[in-house]
Amino acid sequence: MSSSLDRNSFSTTFSQAKVPPMRLGSGAASHLNDVIPAEHRVLLITGGSEEKPAPYLPYIFKSVDFTLWDVHKISVSGEPSPSQIDALCNEFKDAGIQHVVSVGGGSVIDTGKAVSAMLTQRRGVKNFLEGVGHDVYNGQKIHFVALPTTSGPGSECTKNAVLTEIGERGFKKSLRHDTLISDLVILDPNLMISCPSSVTAACGLDAFTQCMEPYLSPQASPFTDALALEGMRLIAGNLSKACNEASQDIECRSNLALGSFFSGVSLANAGLGIVHGLASPLGAHFRIPHGVVCGTLLATAAKINFNAMLKVSNRHPGILKMATIAHAILLENRPRHSATENIWAEALLEYLNVWTKNLSIPTLGQFGITEEHFDQIVEESNNRNNPVTLSKHEVRDLLYQRL
Amino acid sequence: MSSSLDRNSFSTTFSQAKVPPMRLGSGAASHLNDVIPAEHRVLLITGGSEEKPAPYLPYIFKSVDFTLWDVHKISVSGEPSPSQIDALCNEFKDAGIQHVVSVGGGSVIDTGKAVSAMLTQRRGVKNFLEGVGHDVYNGQKIHFVALPTTSGPGSECTKNAVLTEIGERGFKKSLRHDTLISDLVILDPNLMISCPSSVTAACGLDAFTQCMEPYLSPQASPFTDALALEGMRLIAGNLSKACNEASQDIECRSNLALGSFFSGVSLANAGLGIVHGLASPLGAHFRIPHGVVCGTLLATAAKINFNAMLKVSNRHPGILKMATIAHAILLENRPRHSATENIWAEALLEYLNVWTKNLSIPTLGQFGITEEHFDQIVEESNNRNNPVTLSKHEVRDLLYQRL
Repeated sequence: MSSSLDRNSFSTTFSQAKVPPMRLGSGAASHLNDVIPAEHRVLLITGGSEEKPAPYLPYIFKSVDFTLWDVHKISVSGEPSPSQIDALCNEFKDAGIQHVVSVGGGSVIDTGKAVSAMLTQRRGVKNFLEGVGHDVYNGQKIHFVALPTTSGPGSECTKNAVLTEIGERGFKKSLRHDTLISDLVILDPNLMISCPSSVTAACGLDAFTQCMEPYLSPQASPFTDALALEGMRLIAGNLSKACNEASQDIECRSNLALGSFFSGVSLANAGLGIVHGLASPLGAHFRIPHGVVCGTLLATAAKINFNAMLKVSNRHPGILKMATIAHAILLENRPRHSATENIWAEALLEYLNVWTKNLSIPTLGQFGITEEHFDQIVEESNNRNNPVTLSKHEVRDLLYQRL
Repeated sequence: MSSSLDRNSFSTTFSQAKVPPMRLGSGAASHLNDVIPAEHRVLLITGGSEEKPAPYLPYIFKSVDFTLWDVHKISVSGEPSPSQIDALCNEFKDAGIQHVVSVGGGSVIDTGKAVSAMLTQRRGVKNFLEGVGHDVYNGQKIHFVALPTTSGPGSECTKNAVLTEIGERGFKKSLRHDTLISDLVILDPNLMISCPSSVTAACGLDAFTQCMEPYLSPQASPFTDALALEGMRLIAGNLSKACNEASQDIECRSNLALGSFFSGVSLANAGLGIVHGLASPLGAHFRIPHGVVCGTLLATAAKINFNAMLKVSNRHPGILKMATIAHAILLENRPRHSATENIWAEALLEYLNVWTKNLSIPTLGQFGITEEHFDQIVEESNNRNNPVTLSKHEVRDLLYQRL
């Protein structure tokens, strides 16, 4: 089949942002001691709270010698808001911080990215947020190292920090600049083995979505295609195991961490589709974790996209690419080799359906979302980099099917 | 077949260097005007000489407005030597250069990388060369932008600059540091359409080798695998065309440029095998272009590696990976789908053989190499990241077959 797919050509100009240097492996966390010089001033940001300390803290304090540096430690929980970032910057603006180190999930990493940037600025972060403020951020920042403890957000490789103000007039908007890409990413699977199944599942499906949407995006390039496809293979091959018997398995967690890293590189360069186009308004108005939004919408969105593409052409490039994904990730229940691209693409849809069902991702209704909210959500959604333009009705139908 | 290949696992720690930001496309050269601020001091290094100006010069001077900056222009030809680098640094050490821009082939880019580094140092470059000097280079450098005009060396993405001293006591050694990776790569196919067929062919086979050797390397990671495989697909699908009827074709040249970029990322992170292990001594003692060494050895080296791996096991991981390459690049004369990995790998060997023959790459004998030189060359070669350890006899046989 691959010979019938014209993947030998791309005709448009494309730019690709820096991919951060990365170190992966069991024990990689201790590499921090190699890269941050002694006596430097470090702001260490972790997740959790005093009442509920993050489960990865004992490991990080065992493997990294923090006594070498002048360390300020803080912990944050929940998705960061502009006022939180401003408060942190006020607290540390005179501390002469030389490195910001985030150890945690996507929220902790986004907090670190925003703080490492805003410590160099005088005005509040809201002024620099896309679609909210009018200031242009000049890209000055403090050296930033990310140690993710979940495999999903991919935030360690992206050029934006997502800040959230929840509520009726809430928003989920980005501080964005090429320099926000981490200066170093350390993927240590020991930081991930304590991640609970439900979080592993939601984050893993988020990462898969962040590979699949860039792969189907009109902005895709051979660079993002290569990494996104490998990312999907790594995630599909390891996610269910990591949520079950292999939660403590270092190799399994390493594979997921790498898949998530690839998802971040892919989305940073090729953009996202309707699932993430809905994640912004859903996350702005409801307390629903980002990974859950993606996990719950993924399979249904793929099916609705497939049907919409089929209406355009049964040789739609997005359908051909869905077939290629099926080729790469389906190890069992593969269609016969002589099957058409459509049959392969349908096999992918069936796979996503069964997979996400087995991972028991909650539905939207469980977070207080009802039909009455649909108009606003659809209005605020975007599907700029979706492989096909969806009608308002189709987007509504996607929400309805996952209520 | 892919289901029988266990590519779902990698167990060792790996590090991956920064992948430089990159812009690709027809007209991308003009992006230089967006990134270098007005009135900055720029050292522009191009290829060619006064008697034989480089054919891409009219294009670069038409698309980039150099009058905005304070520009020092120099041109260099041939692979750079330590004394050339020192002379250039002496010439410009008081000029307050803020950006070094290389427009040219691998030698021009390596010159720029070495100069951008050594302009910040007091001692000559020989002191910092691996295996030659004893100083440790601290990584300080001047902002460096690479605009390749050939598709092959991949030097724009690697962390080393290769310097050559030709002669009996000659060497080909690297100045190496993570910071030597270009700060920006601009791939404009218009700079490549004037590259003559013979150079396009040799460089393209070099780039293919720089994908294949990292792909088969024990240091390979899922990251390098994804890019190397896509690089081989792009190069195999476009090289013969670019050497013939499609030499002026922007899309074909873009594909080759991207394949070459991927080859640089792959080799920078996963290392190289016996072809490049022989390229160092061959290039140090004879005036043979690096691309020609790679092109002439590629197919025979693959065959010798295959036989050596077969002696170890007919399920050798390197053979399985050769089969995966065959799956990715063979569009015609594919074996039946049910064929074993060995048959696929042999189909790859046959493909490489026919391909390199059709590209009319010169043999070693044409550069004055004789059997009498074999002892020294074999002695100085290395096959550290070859998929299998070759005996001295096997390495000798490789040279003999390409004499």
